[in-house]
Amino acid sequence: MQALLFDGQLRLANDYPAPILAPGEALIRPSLVGICNTDIEITRGYMGFRGVLGHEFVGVVQDCEDRAWVGRRVVGEINAACRRCAVCARGDESHCPERTTLGIDRRDGAMAELFSLPIACLHEVPASLPDQVAVFAEPLAAALEILEQSHVRPTDRVAVVGDGKLGLLCAQALRLPGCEVVVIGRHPERWDLLHELGIEAVQAEPVASDQLSVATRYGRRTTDDGQFDVVVDCTGQPSGLAVARSLVRPRGRLALKSTFAAESGVNLSRLVVDEVQLLGSRCGPFAPALRLLDHGLINVQPLVAGQFSLRHGLDAFAAASRRLKILLEISHAD
Amino acid sequence: MQALLFDGQLRLANDYPAPILAPGEALIRPSLVGICNTDIEITRGYMGFRGVLGHEFVGVVQDCEDRAWVGRRVVGEINAACRRCAVCARGDESHCPERTTLGIDRRDGAMAELFSLPIACLHEVPASLPDQVAVFAEPLAAALEILEQSHVRPTDRVAVVGDGKLGLLCAQALRLPGCEVVVIGRHPERWDLLHELGIEAVQAEPVASDQLSVATRYGRRTTDDGQFDVVVDCTGQPSGLAVARSLVRPRGRLALKSTFAAESGVNLSRLVVDEVQLLGSRCGPFAPALRLLDHGLINVQPLVAGQFSLRHGLDAFAAASRRLKILLEISHAD
Repeated sequence: MQALLFDGQLRLANDYPAPILAPGEALIRPSLVGICNTDIEITRGYMGFRGVLGHEFVGVVQDCEDRAWVGRRVVGEINAACRRCAVCARGDESHCPERTTLGIDRRDGAMAELFSLPIACLHEVPASLPDQVAVFAEPLAAALEILEQSHVRPTDRVAVVGDGKLGLLCAQALRLPGCEVVVIGRHPERWDLLHELGIEAVQAEPVASDQLSVATRYGRRTTDDGQFDVVVDCTGQPSGLAVARSLVRPRGRLALKSTFAAESGVNLSRLVVDEVQLLGSRCGPFAPALRLLDHGLINVQPLVAGQFSLRHGLDAFAAASRRLKILLEISHAD
Repeated sequence: MQALLFDGQLRLANDYPAPILAPGEALIRPSLVGICNTDIEITRGYMGFRGVLGHEFVGVVQDCEDRAWVGRRVVGEINAACRRCAVCARGDESHCPERTTLGIDRRDGAMAELFSLPIACLHEVPASLPDQVAVFAEPLAAALEILEQSHVRPTDRVAVVGDGKLGLLCAQALRLPGCEVVVIGRHPERWDLLHELGIEAVQAEPVASDQLSVATRYGRRTTDDGQFDVVVDCTGQPSGLAVARSLVRPRGRLALKSTFAAESGVNLSRLVVDEVQLLGSRCGPFAPALRLLDHGLINVQPLVAGQFSLRHGLDAFAAASRRLKILLEISHAD
């Protein structure tokens, strides 16, 4: 079968072996697969992964022990847990030490004509959601993980650093409890969506925090101390993390959504002095993501920058490194 | 001036003395005032209040020391704090022991041609928000107080007991973080709004919790244990509180939004055994409420059941006890 893989370099294979149905798993024919910054980082060495890429998908179950799933349109959680260890027993499958991860860690991903994932990872997509929206369930779930981990109050001032794919999803998720959200970014051409949603956006340069203060149209409280209760780093860059760190108020929270191959330094003793809470944040809950997409509370359409067929996968990756979400379209003979 | 007041009985006065400008306060000409269940409870003896009713308003500042406020369209927080005591010093003005409360406790309310409120309580209304929407800032802020007080996670199952004015606002607020929300009510004719928003609604009878389990369209997790992580009582009835209590899971949270004249009993030792967290919840943050209304994330239009002029205030109260939000329209000569 055709597959887009990384084996030291990104390449398209036309004769990759199709997966075989394993117990408890489902074979899925993906229709759309999103390219994530993590995919790009993998091609730079992140995770040392070798195999088929792709973990943001929507597709149809082709084969599965439990016949009820066959033919259903699904999205899926990317962590394939052992479901036997103590971590799994306490319901924390996404942190199972034995887990494999779709297209990221010892498990072939979705950028192929067929791939395999445990049935337990699947979520049926409501009929009302088109593929182009459902394919955002995985990254939106990751954005929602911040709300899952930490008490973000309606009165919290929130800064999202980075106006890429994940930054624009995090900003949308964090405005939902009523928070005042400011995006610090470098791409003003992407800000129309934010302004329509009532989200402020400011240039990342200069980085001095007093330059980032913004007038608030609703509250009496001014933000002229330039400090935020909750800051989310979505830049995928060590320099972005430094900007994010500078914006957190003492006793504030700094959520880290970036995974990147390069090491980055944060001054830990300053975190202690300022009592800043650092939150590593990764995969999130799918059911709320599907609800919010289905309710029209998150607007993903402006995030789509292009759609390529799988055989143009190399071009798609080249485009994805400079643009918002690139989707791979996977066609099937029958 | 004309005013609707309670002095042992609800009555319309045509010669009520107009307020005089006090230091730090603003004189406000209200244009719309909402009737709240608390107003109705006051006419039944709640708070022992005597004076002009009304605490949900939108209006224009007529006079004020700080001339910048004159002519501005405002909504306002209802607690007039001393701003000198220790409680105020820690930023908790809405719990100031010396506070008076607009139309509820030792301070004439907004159901009059003119009323007074401290400048510190005012919030300017964005020009884009019509009066009929802005007048919901106060009750929506009260609904948001639940999100302010407690960490409601996107994966939490939430039940709102009561499909009255406040219940419908609480349900809308609690769906925003992505939660699965079920409203337990008695008025199916009010549920179209909920269904459009993807919120389930079920009949309050029978009250056995296993009857209230609902199929979830999105998640794999079933709700057939009939128990909820977060339950909000918006019924204003002791019997509603009993239903709400029966729905909370062990270690869950029960938010109490109702204020009523009658006493109600909750079995406190069962709360201890089940480790249920009881949250008294009252006034909330205005800035997020105005943001959400301005962003169109809360739909208040279907909540308006009628609009009466101030001189038909007695009819308005009669209607308000049976219907959703009744608004009083206050016209001014010039």
